Amino acid sequence: MTSFVPVPKGSDFPLENLPYGVFSTRDNSQKRVCVAIGEHVLDLAAVSQLYPQNVQAALQSESLNALMGLGYEAWNVVRTRTTELLTKNSPLEQNSTLVKSAIIPQSECQMHLPANIGDYTDFYSSIYHATNVGIMFRSKENALMPNWKHLPVGYHGRASSVVVSGTPIRRPYGQTIPVENAAPFFGPCRLLDFELEMAFFVGGPETQLGERVPVEQAWKRIFGFTLMNDWSARDIQKWEYVPLGPFTAKNLGTTISPWVVPVAALEPFLVPNYPQDPEVFPYLKHTQPFNFDINLFVDLKPENQEPTTICKSNYRHLYWTAAQQLAHHTITGCNVRPGDLMASGTISGETEDSFGSMLELCWKGTKSIQLKGGDSRKFLQDGDEVIIRGYCEKDGLRIGFGKCADKIFCIERSV
Amino acid sequence: MTSFVPVPKGSDFPLENLPYGVFSTRDNSQKRVCVAIGEHVLDLAAVSQLYPQNVQAALQSESLNALMGLGYEAWNVVRTRTTELLTKNSPLEQNSTLVKSAIIPQSECQMHLPANIGDYTDFYSSIYHATNVGIMFRSKENALMPNWKHLPVGYHGRASSVVVSGTPIRRPYGQTIPVENAAPFFGPCRLLDFELEMAFFVGGPETQLGERVPVEQAWKRIFGFTLMNDWSARDIQKWEYVPLGPFTAKNLGTTISPWVVPVAALEPFLVPNYPQDPEVFPYLKHTQPFNFDINLFVDLKPENQEPTTICKSNYRHLYWTAAQQLAHHTITGCNVRPGDLMASGTISGETEDSFGSMLELCWKGTKSIQLKGGDSRKFLQDGDEVIIRGYCEKDGLRIGFGKCADKIFCIERSV
Ligand SMILES: [Ca+2]
Ligand SMILES: [Ca+2]
Ligand SMILES: [Mg+2]
Ligand SMILES: [Mg+2]
Ligand code: NI
Repeated sequence: MTSFVPVPKGSDFPLENLPYGVFSTRDNSQKRVCVAIGEHVLDLAAVSQLYPQNVQAALQSESLNALMGLGYEAWNVVRTRTTELLTKNSPLEQNSTLVKSAIIPQSECQMHLPANIGDYTDFYSSIYHATNVGIMFRSKENALMPNWKHLPVGYHGRASSVVVSGTPIRRPYGQTIPVENAAPFFGPCRLLDFELEMAFFVGGPETQLGERVPVEQAWKRIFGFTLMNDWSARDIQKWEYVPLGPFTAKNLGTTISPWVVPVAALEPFLVPNYPQDPEVFPYLKHTQPFNFDINLFVDLKPENQEPTTICKSNYRHLYWTAAQQLAHHTITGCNVRPGDLMASGTISGETEDSFGSMLELCWKGTKSIQLKGGDSRKFLQDGDEVIIRGYCEKDGLRIGFGKCADKIFCIERSV
Repeated sequence: MTSFVPVPKGSDFPLENLPYGVFSTRDNSQKRVCVAIGEHVLDLAAVSQLYPQNVQAALQSESLNALMGLGYEAWNVVRTRTTELLTKNSPLEQNSTLVKSAIIPQSECQMHLPANIGDYTDFYSSIYHATNVGIMFRSKENALMPNWKHLPVGYHGRASSVVVSGTPIRRPYGQTIPVENAAPFFGPCRLLDFELEMAFFVGGPETQLGERVPVEQAWKRIFGFTLMNDWSARDIQKWEYVPLGPFTAKNLGTTISPWVVPVAALEPFLVPNYPQDPEVFPYLKHTQPFNFDINLFVDLKPENQEPTTICKSNYRHLYWTAAQQLAHHTITGCNVRPGDLMASGTISGETEDSFGSMLELCWKGTKSIQLKGGDSRKFLQDGDEVIIRGYCEKDGLRIGFGKCADKIFCIERSV
């Protein structure tokens, strides 16, 4: 299958991907829904009249919430039709006026948050990450909490502070304990960190309070995946998080990539679920695989220097699937709405080069990472850019996620 | 000052209150903004043309978010004008057609959630509550965590599951440890509880990520207060909450009262802030009082029985003020939006009859509450209705909050 829009070799966005996004252009500040194809986007509002009537309003919307809300069958209809339209010799290709207005270079697009996020949740589903953190802050013997293998541990995050790739992140000020057991200190965060994560958007109609999403139905409730960086102020987190969890240490900003890759595009990369022992409760059990072989990378780029890849991980390392996360999230009756964002937690693998945070890579500051430009790091410095990339690859097919990249800056302020 | 709308003696809603709400009627399912006056509401959309041009659109809106977003000066303009309009011999009183359409009995109103809540946060600001919980789960010596007196501890809650008074709450299913240190069990929650809380809505224009709300400006950023019941599944909470905080134990539903009492109406009831020792950091320091003498009550009403008042507390017992909560929430740069909801945490007083949860009233199930109908309770049973009431009273002036009342029901389901 070939598109009439050129797709360079190694592109994240072949015809088989078609990730969704929301964009505007200099000429037209109206936010519009699009898919990425090669180095261009297809403006779905501009071609919405070529789709079935029942999906047109969603394609003319300012965000992806409406399309997410239409549900699984409609997603397939839209995807099939978009694929047809972008294939060589399609009726769209023959309409050169429409092609000119609807196919736009990505370089001319300003990308926006893909959806209005009603609620954002962060899980903690990598067994390697949870074990690392447990060893560092407790002991090897009690690394995993007793609940960890029985349920996907998670917490509610701050929806307002989720931003799209390209939004600078300010080094926060807050309370910390610089000297163990001494008095708290107020000042700039000294242990600023990233967390390599992926997140999915919930789709389908809004559920009612008291309703559950059964684990077998979760597949049809998951619209697609993005890359995520859960910026974390470790020193602030350590002081504030007992007993109610992370709060201001996380709501300084959470960055997601602009592209939402549909689950359908990831199907060729399905792999078996992580084996779970002890056996989970029936409400968490699903035999159909919902795990994906997605290569993940973190590059660290100091200001005016070249980037160094400091982490190579994979989504498949997660112990809990997204289907289990969604089923557990709703088990007590929590209602979900299209556009809700649910993140994986830091995706660390087994080996040291696959750890998904500075905390783990530098083992609580006990060692440093060497960067290509000669610098070294234990935590992030002002001017550092953290670039998260991800793609699936097999048999010449590459389904990529684009980039999730943001820079840290600092403004001097009175404390 | 007297209104031409009758205000019965003992009413929560005299002319000096004018709490905001969102309602619809059988004749007109359109959601509209209103204020309560006596046993009626004034439909603000219906009279919006009597207000200055710059606030009219907000008064014609489906929710209070627009009015909240206009900010402090606009709130005063609207409040002053509403007071004028409802005062005896006002131009409104003389327009009998308009009075007929705009003044509606509350008995004919369906109340809705007052705002679209972008994010909901729950604090933990009663020193008596935090101490009680600390004694029960740790020890008297280590009751308060080391951070507790240095910052207002809080966590992000689930915005989607905040519902307005009158929405039935379903007993949740989840994982618990019925026998200490034994294997987890999946089934209906056995230790369902309420939490007596109050919450405020954030107002003023949306802030930017990286921006703070200074504590001295918080007053102008707080639109008004509601009553809140933070339903809590204690047995589920106990198993899930380490290390990332409460999650599914809380997102089964959080009930707020339909009426948002403006800060201006509470000013006569300002009392000194709770004395804080040790001294707090400058970003949390405010000398202007922002504490209020609000009497709070919890009634428990088993199905087909009369209610028993099981708790008498007061908002003034909080250690941290709402201004400090908002300043702390934004200290690392978290952006806030009009309509964000921030709750106090369980408001327990010093004495046993002022404890704001069953957990504390029955001291972890070690004693029972006797109810008027002859029943007793350690936690909530199906069919129980929990009614939270609140009012300020002084020199013949009563400013009330109405009721926050919901019932627990259970639907048998396969596990
Ligand atoms: Ca995280
Ligand atoms: Ca609470
Ligand atoms: Mg965030
Ligand atoms: Mg809730
Ligand atoms: Ni081109």
